[in-house]
Amino acid sequence: MRRKVATIVTARPSYARIKTALQAIQQHPDLELQLIVAASALLDRYGNIVQYIEKDGFEVAARVYIVLEGENLVTSAKSTGLGIMELATIFDNLQPDVVVTVADRYETLASAVAAAYMNIPVAHVQGGEKTGSIDERVRHAVTKLADLHFPATKNAGERILRMGEDPKTVFVTGCPSIDLAKMVAKDPDLTFSPFEKYGGVGTSSDLSNGYVVVMQHPVTTQYEESRSQIEATLEAVEASDLPAMWFWPNVDAGSDGISRGIRIFREKGRGKKFHFFKNMEPIDFLRLVYNSKAIIGNSSVGIRECSFLGTPAVNIGDRQAGRERGKNVIDVPYSSKEIMMALTSHFANGRYAQDHLYGDGMAGPRIAEHLASASLRVAKQVTY
Amino acid sequence: MRRKVATIVTARPSYARIKTALQAIQQHPDLELQLIVAASALLDRYGNIVQYIEKDGFEVAARVYIVLEGENLVTSAKSTGLGIMELATIFDNLQPDVVVTVADRYETLASAVAAAYMNIPVAHVQGGEKTGSIDERVRHAVTKLADLHFPATKNAGERILRMGEDPKTVFVTGCPSIDLAKMVAKDPDLTFSPFEKYGGVGTSSDLSNGYVVVMQHPVTTQYEESRSQIEATLEAVEASDLPAMWFWPNVDAGSDGISRGIRIFREKGRGKKFHFFKNMEPIDFLRLVYNSKAIIGNSSVGIRECSFLGTPAVNIGDRQAGRERGKNVIDVPYSSKEIMMALTSHFANGRYAQDHLYGDGMAGPRIAEHLASASLRVAKQVTY
Amino acid sequence: MRRKVATIVTARPSYARIKTALQAIQQHPDLELQLIVAASALLDRYGNIVQYIEKDGFEVAARVYIVLEGENLVTSAKSTGLGIMELATIFDNLQPDVVVTVADRYETLASAVAAAYMNIPVAHVQGGEKTGSIDERVRHAVTKLADLHFPATKNAGERILRMGEDPKTVFVTGCPSIDLAKMVAKDPDLTFSPFEKYGGVGTSSDLSNGYVVVMQHPVTTQYEESRSQIEATLEAVEASDLPAMWFWPNVDAGSDGISRGIRIFREKGRGKKFHFFKNMEPIDFLRLVYNSKAIIGNSSVGIRECSFLGTPAVNIGDRQAGRERGKNVIDVPYSSKEIMMALTSHFANGRYAQDHLYGDGMAGPRIAEHLASASLRVAKQVTY
Amino acid sequence: MRRKVATIVTARPSYARIKTALQAIQQHPDLELQLIVAASALLDRYGNIVQYIEKDGFEVAARVYIVLEGENLVTSAKSTGLGIMELATIFDNLQPDVVVTVADRYETLASAVAAAYMNIPVAHVQGGEKTGSIDERVRHAVTKLADLHFPATKNAGERILRMGEDPKTVFVTGCPSIDLAKMVAKDPDLTFSPFEKYGGVGTSSDLSNGYVVVMQHPVTTQYEESRSQIEATLEAVEASDLPAMWFWPNVDAGSDGISRGIRIFREKGRGKKFHFFKNMEPIDFLRLVYNSKAIIGNSSVGIRECSFLGTPAVNIGDRQAGRERGKNVIDVPYSSKEIMMALTSHFANGRYAQDHLYGDGMAGPRIAEHLASASLRVAKQVTY
Repeated sequence: MRRKVATIVTARPSYARIKTALQAIQQHPDLELQLIVAASALLDRYGNIVQYIEKDGFEVAARVYIVLEGENLVTSAKSTGLGIMELATIFDNLQPDVVVTVADRYETLASAVAAAYMNIPVAHVQGGEKTGSIDERVRHAVTKLADLHFPATKNAGERILRMGEDPKTVFVTGCPSIDLAKMVAKDPDLTFSPFEKYGGVGTSSDLSNGYVVVMQHPVTTQYEESRSQIEATLEAVEASDLPAMWFWPNVDAGSDGISRGIRIFREKGRGKKFHFFKNMEPIDFLRLVYNSKAIIGNSSVGIRECSFLGTPAVNIGDRQAGRERGKNVIDVPYSSKEIMMALTSHFANGRYAQDHLYGDGMAGPRIAEHLASASLRVAKQVTY
Repeated sequence: MRRKVATIVTARPSYARIKTALQAIQQHPDLELQLIVAASALLDRYGNIVQYIEKDGFEVAARVYIVLEGENLVTSAKSTGLGIMELATIFDNLQPDVVVTVADRYETLASAVAAAYMNIPVAHVQGGEKTGSIDERVRHAVTKLADLHFPATKNAGERILRMGEDPKTVFVTGCPSIDLAKMVAKDPDLTFSPFEKYGGVGTSSDLSNGYVVVMQHPVTTQYEESRSQIEATLEAVEASDLPAMWFWPNVDAGSDGISRGIRIFREKGRGKKFHFFKNMEPIDFLRLVYNSKAIIGNSSVGIRECSFLGTPAVNIGDRQAGRERGKNVIDVPYSSKEIMMALTSHFANGRYAQDHLYGDGMAGPRIAEHLASASLRVAKQVTY
Repeated sequence: MRRKVATIVTARPSYARIKTALQAIQQHPDLELQLIVAASALLDRYGNIVQYIEKDGFEVAARVYIVLEGENLVTSAKSTGLGIMELATIFDNLQPDVVVTVADRYETLASAVAAAYMNIPVAHVQGGEKTGSIDERVRHAVTKLADLHFPATKNAGERILRMGEDPKTVFVTGCPSIDLAKMVAKDPDLTFSPFEKYGGVGTSSDLSNGYVVVMQHPVTTQYEESRSQIEATLEAVEASDLPAMWFWPNVDAGSDGISRGIRIFREKGRGKKFHFFKNMEPIDFLRLVYNSKAIIGNSSVGIRECSFLGTPAVNIGDRQAGRERGKNVIDVPYSSKEIMMALTSHFANGRYAQDHLYGDGMAGPRIAEHLASASLRVAKQVTY
Repeated sequence: MRRKVATIVTARPSYARIKTALQAIQQHPDLELQLIVAASALLDRYGNIVQYIEKDGFEVAARVYIVLEGENLVTSAKSTGLGIMELATIFDNLQPDVVVTVADRYETLASAVAAAYMNIPVAHVQGGEKTGSIDERVRHAVTKLADLHFPATKNAGERILRMGEDPKTVFVTGCPSIDLAKMVAKDPDLTFSPFEKYGGVGTSSDLSNGYVVVMQHPVTTQYEESRSQIEATLEAVEASDLPAMWFWPNVDAGSDGISRGIRIFREKGRGKKFHFFKNMEPIDFLRLVYNSKAIIGNSSVGIRECSFLGTPAVNIGDRQAGRERGKNVIDVPYSSKEIMMALTSHFANGRYAQDHLYGDGMAGPRIAEHLASASLRVAKQVTY
């Protein structure tokens, strides 16, 4: 009897961060993958990623819409509730033996709550990290609901233990995103034109003399300032005079503010070297990042994948506050001047050395193996 | 500007355990109470407690149905999700400054998730305790979502700190349920007839020669065994030959099994001295418990309020496993023989000494004072 | 390519009323049945009928909990809303070519709304009838949402046309419940003991000298009076001095009132010849009805199936007001005296002649054939 | 005791079409208005109209998010379900005596279903009309759920009667939108600059030499073609060489297709004389329409308000198929050539004569008066 492993993929970054684990689960003789595609992964507006998922050879077991329009604090809460309701029905019909949930998004919490109440063991990937905002609360709440823990770093694993989890259930696997980074680092050539392959809007510049990548998400607890925050980045990136490969933010409270800030900047005829993308296949995206002169914004990619890739990162604001980082990261506030200074410093340095902080590139197979062999007991208690 | 304090009351025990805090909030010059009545508190079948709430002088700010029929694991998950969705709308309309959530039920989690995503500070009463079942996970998950912590015991407070909460946010207040126990211990006479005042079904025995109180809830992670578990209790209580004041279980996965076990026992003409109640006003209930020869089952009342009251308690099964207890508690498995032996031992001992393990009877005013004066910051991070 | 036909079964009576159509769909070479089991069909408390469904050889494509606890007017509305949300996800995953919805319950409306918005053609069985209460509104609203109409009677079909539906979409098929009645009328012997086969509570009387069947549901728009209404029936049935085979009511606003009325009557030691059942397989139930001296209450079985069976029916109150009826029905108000008088008159008459008012026993195959051959166009407009 | 009248406002057009009735209800001595703001009325992306509502002097009794992201057929169904669930809670807390629901959107159906199940009388404004698409089904389903009918036209009223509604409940009041049109026709000067007052994006042309207004919504049952349909309009409007005041479509399945079609057209540097608005106050909008040379698209404004205003309308496609229309309307398919020909014909004709087809401008006060005086009985039955 193969163990049935249900996983929910909901957004561009969470797919990239679990993809090698999904592949390893799919290929494992003792496991059967049940892939649920939900939320913004189904939405055109955020780059319907279900097509990439299917192209990668995964079969979709169920699809479900759970995102409430509004992109504000109220609708984030409601989407979580709706996710729990719908996932409970889906789990009841799929009858998984274990549910894998990734990181700290509202779908992560929704999966964990639904499974925990249904006595389905929960395996949590990327727990124990320390950051800012609501993600911090959600991540640790999921740890307390989960049965198995697959943290990315040694520190994260220790933090999970200190929170009272049983050492027999905590396995430091590294992050599956680093598995992809390893593949890219071995074979880094940018063999495709991002403009031709992914369309998007804006200028199709010559990339051969260098470019930057920008990815800045709204900060949930400060969503009204989203628009003014993005303006500092817009100014600084334009001042660099390099082509910018700019990615639209996740569906989240505050993303309307960011989108509007960008649109108004462009209406004024500014940002002439910017090109905007919704989405890319994870490997293409990492190649684009690898070959860039820097990644700018507040995505954890700059800290996580780029620690392995060595790409310089300018990390803006406190979204990643508390997260462990390597030497490739310079932290700055929402200030165009400080962003520019950080870029100058990075451009002088060039690529940084490979760092195994977030993993050695074998996380996916390790996670699959633990899912196949670990004891899936459902009773748990704080260890102190 | 008074701080608006929203609280959700959903069930008989959670009302009793927060009532003195609600009164203290209502009376505090700097606080305004927003009472939300939900879930089984609105259901006749579980003793519609909204009438007691209004009789106690509270005004209901909103009422909402969130319990899915089925009383199984799937519907517990779905009720949680529905609770989040509905509470988000209610919070959006009431605009509270802080949300108080109690203990570890699914409504507790629903309140905490909705408020956390909406950037409304969450105050958690009765966190940090250690028990069995899904409650354990939910309680600690709520701790990780919460901003202020009002644990009942010193140990619980220390556990919350070890989980990484900021010491400036943790206040050991004692449990508000002990405030009621203190009132009852000062004025313990059973001045009412439970049969006349509360109806219910079964025999109305003479209570002057002693009686027992029974309250046994389903154990969520083992719900199919609910019926066989209740049978051990039914046998042992009948064997004691004392009148039994028996309370129907909470709405929860497994409660149908218990109800059916009881009905079948009675169809056989057994349990002649049993009388069944849905509900009682908290003070009446505690007086009934105070004057009983023992409380039997798996309710935390036997451990919590009875530590202060000194009433002997027979605690069955692992529902309260890990919870701190005083000398008044004898733990037994689901065995009619062991329940009987424990009763014999308790009857020989009589009332135990008052123990301040769960508080000194001043929790409600302390909680209100902290709600009025504490810093309600919304950013938080694990302390290690 | 076989047409995929999704149908939702939610309750004891709706299953009996669609069963022969389900069988005919399953057996039709051009159709594929997608059976969704929902709502009270999954609840133990109302006689979990999913076991009968599977025993009848149907495979369940999806199961979903949609009933909110409370059994009042608010929760009926909310269950409808929840049903729409959940069924939309299920339809999105099953991708049916047509959705069959039966009669006038809230699940009927939920199916029709979900399918209509999703551009999935809706086939409505048992539309066009005229009754009292909220069912009347729901039934006709479903007619206006539906694409194909399979009314049971000639009058119902004419009513659908007068409401502006296209004659090319209206097919008077008879009611599938009559298909079962026909089987029973051909082979009516009561070859089983209802007490042994179905358990239940109450006295197991000797049935050889006659008995009555009772089935009385709450009347939604008058739910607070449910309890007093059931008392008239309890008095009259006891006065008949015949054994009574009594069925618990549907999950609906008001059913708590009925259940409580019955329990209190029994607590007083009355109704000694009553036996209470949750549920029976449809054929067994109709055999029990066929062999009874009368059916009492407000179920449409007394009017519909019994027109064919010839069993005398005492129809109480206005739940069936407006519904076409044969000579086997005597209508009475909620009065024990008038119920007794009607029974006396029926007992004097005995069985009535077979009447084809609600069909000739071939409805199921007719419906399947129309589903296979009808044009499933999705544009429609009122004909005037 | 004043009757409490709950009304849900959810979108730009439904607010404009009920505004004078809301004012008349608010001013009526025997009525109390309970205004619920929901769905896209709360969304920035569709021109958060709650600010206009409050500026117009209305107090918001409750606000609720019910729109699922996705803007496809599945999410329309789910938003309806979510609307019913949430509105049931809101009605339970507000306890209205009657619920007013307008036209044929999913919120209309959600309000009607929630209220009907809760035994709250439903008053339906703008029922009985005949159009294309899902709106047709929803409108007539609402008629079958409603207790009071306030159709706009004589024909619509007759259609409602033919559907079996009781003549004592049907009142031809005219459409409240015509009340606004009457005010505008009396005082038509365009005293504001739309660009200054409402911002928006695109060119701010000189309007003194004429301009057109464009408003084209997705057609639900054909949503994948939305994008190609809008292209015909874009081409034709550009060819007219007149400034175009263009309004973004409603939140609906298919609106993403329209938005994308528009954005791509503009990315190509076309539509140089177009200016895009999200929203306008109803009176400003009608003044803009009154002074335009034509209104183009598929909004019912062209048919309804413009019959009174006399503004030439080019009605594209079948969204308004079946709706009664005056001489000011030319119907065309999705063809840029035919749109251009219709414009030529209209420009040659100029303004048409005032037509009272949709009302005489007194609908709001009439509706309020009927709400105050009508018998609000809750039992109903089809009349045949």
